[in-house]
Amino acid sequence: GAGMTKFGELWDMSLRDLFVDAALKAMSDAGVDTLDSMYIGNMSGGQFVGQEHLGPLMADHLGVAGVPAMRVESACASGGMALRAAYFEVASGMSDFVLASGVEKMNDGADVTGVLATASDQEEEVYYGVTFPGLYAMIARAHMEKYGTTEEDLSWVSVKAHRNGANNPHAQFRRVMSLEDVMTSSVVAEPLRLLHCSPVTDGGAALILCPADRAHEFTDQPVKILGSGAATSTLALANRMDPADLDVVELSGTRAFEQAGISPRDVDVAEVHDCFAIAEICCYEALGFVERGKGKDAAKDGVTDLGGAIPVNVSGGLKSKGHPVGATGISQAVTIVDQLRGKAGDVQVDGARIGLA
Amino acid sequence: GAGMTKFGELWDMSLRDLFVDAALKAMSDAGVDTLDSMYIGNMSGGQFVGQEHLGPLMADHLGVAGVPAMRVESACASGGMALRAAYFEVASGMSDFVLASGVEKMNDGADVTGVLATASDQEEEVYYGVTFPGLYAMIARAHMEKYGTTEEDLSWVSVKAHRNGANNPHAQFRRVMSLEDVMTSSVVAEPLRLLHCSPVTDGGAALILCPADRAHEFTDQPVKILGSGAATSTLALANRMDPADLDVVELSGTRAFEQAGISPRDVDVAEVHDCFAIAEICCYEALGFVERGKGKDAAKDGVTDLGGAIPVNVSGGLKSKGHPVGATGISQAVTIVDQLRGKAGDVQVDGARIGLA
Repeated sequence: GAGMTKFGELWDMSLRDLFVDAALKAMSDAGVDTLDSMYIGNMSGGQFVGQEHLGPLMADHLGVAGVPAMRVESACASGGMALRAAYFEVASGMSDFVLASGVEKMNDGADVTGVLATASDQEEEVYYGVTFPGLYAMIARAHMEKYGTTEEDLSWVSVKAHRNGANNPHAQFRRVMSLEDVMTSSVVAEPLRLLHCSPVTDGGAALILCPADRAHEFTDQPVKILGSGAATSTLALANRMDPADLDVVELSGTRAFEQAGISPRDVDVAEVHDCFAIAEICCYEALGFVERGKGKDAAKDGVTDLGGAIPVNVSGGLKSKGHPVGATGISQAVTIVDQLRGKAGDVQVDGARIGLA
Repeated sequence: GAGMTKFGELWDMSLRDLFVDAALKAMSDAGVDTLDSMYIGNMSGGQFVGQEHLGPLMADHLGVAGVPAMRVESACASGGMALRAAYFEVASGMSDFVLASGVEKMNDGADVTGVLATASDQEEEVYYGVTFPGLYAMIARAHMEKYGTTEEDLSWVSVKAHRNGANNPHAQFRRVMSLEDVMTSSVVAEPLRLLHCSPVTDGGAALILCPADRAHEFTDQPVKILGSGAATSTLALANRMDPADLDVVELSGTRAFEQAGISPRDVDVAEVHDCFAIAEICCYEALGFVERGKGKDAAKDGVTDLGGAIPVNVSGGLKSKGHPVGATGISQAVTIVDQLRGKAGDVQVDGARIGLA
């Protein structure tokens, strides 16, 4: 089962409302009314809205107090890691029906840029004044130096994001943007402009997992997890061998491909982390969708468009769909589930059989 | 493998130092120099020291960047839930060597009581001004009304804690306290006095898990996980059927006993969550160590002393050993490991074979 809230500035929904809305949609989609366990991906409930300990809070407000529940935090990967933890619990044989979810309430008055910066290395980098737009600007600059990537290359990623997102009813910004719109938007951290940056978003998303051999009890279109890869790199950007290469994405991708027994060219549709346009270009390369140095051309040349060799971020990506940090990883998986079931409407990739988030 | 830092006001150690110290001790104890995965229990790195995303930060500073790592947050149960998640990963067959850890840096200038309160229900209770001492004072008052528990009953729990903790080289307060010391300490939230309350502590703790059939490669004294139980209750105290009974502890205990195929009377030694003295009394009852209503007499009558029917909190408990929130659950397991290996020195329970945390 899979479900998600509308993403956006949702002033009439609290953190718990967002979770419950997504969880009920996933349970309804799955046709499951009982849970053995719950995982909640969330980056900064404590700093954003003064609320930690989302496990029991959300179990209670979903009406299932008693069910084991824990929060998983891995910054922007919180949702992805919550899914991974839920997958382990089912695979261990301990539980059959496990909810993997993510939620973030960012529009509630907090200093969002300051809160997000606590996901980078406080002692070695944040202390000196850097925040995420600055860190990704340095990644972009390094990529430009190494591979000749241009501001226009970055901008085509955003144009594609908004073209896809305009067709996604859950997206925060359903508006087509032209190359000129992107390239004339305000500079946030040079060379990154406003329309190269994902927005501040409220939202939630949820999945229901069960053992593969029980899925047929609930659906004729089960979606199987073929592999899960995770990896870490140095948190401080300055300590990385090459900031332009996102080796950590290559490592996690390689692990997932190995477990699944597939190669990058077997992937029919992918959702990757375009918190900034440069990140999507780095992901193309790190995941092996294109060669190193060719990432800059992929969006421009239509390789990652709907109808291209490997459609990426058909949901609109973080840029257009929105980026409620803890929910993002789960919402990417929700998009992949829709694609593999052929229910993605105007952004359906024909015959998609294997997806990657 | 098992290891922990000294607990206390550790002004010369940062959050990452505490983690690395505990992790290296656990790896050295295990004789393991490679990890497949890491879990870090931590309640409020973001609020306490401006640092979320401890997974990659700690992997990097342990010198193993690349290894998958995630933070688990469940307030005071963060360490316990990190252990549970690590257990699932090993049980799933995905990984062989998984580090389960917990860490908290509380002495660094934050408003500790305010931060801790974000683990209770912000919208329904914290907003109106309550903090944890007040919530547990209400639990204590409810227990007094229902079972006739007295301030002296509470105080014997603290006396026992300090008698045990005086023998624990890792404890924050290694000082014996008399009944009079406890009963004349300042009132924090009536009926709870200062010496009924756990302190503010910095510390870290870590375990290395591996599949049971590989443990013999590393030790002649493997410690096996027989069962793991978890449960949730309403986060808002006011919504619980009976605040005096900690039904959630009964539920998680029952699940653990069932999986292990044992009963409460099979337990030789236990570490329970005495964040406030009343909580330990509630745990005696909820875990089935004594009947409901008899918890108040257990410490006073020596039932839970070293040498009693069921020694509880031989480490000194949160009260004397200290309570670095995210580390507490793992440090309880470290204490149990030491007991089951007969390495607990002056607080060894003779012939302990089954322990509960």
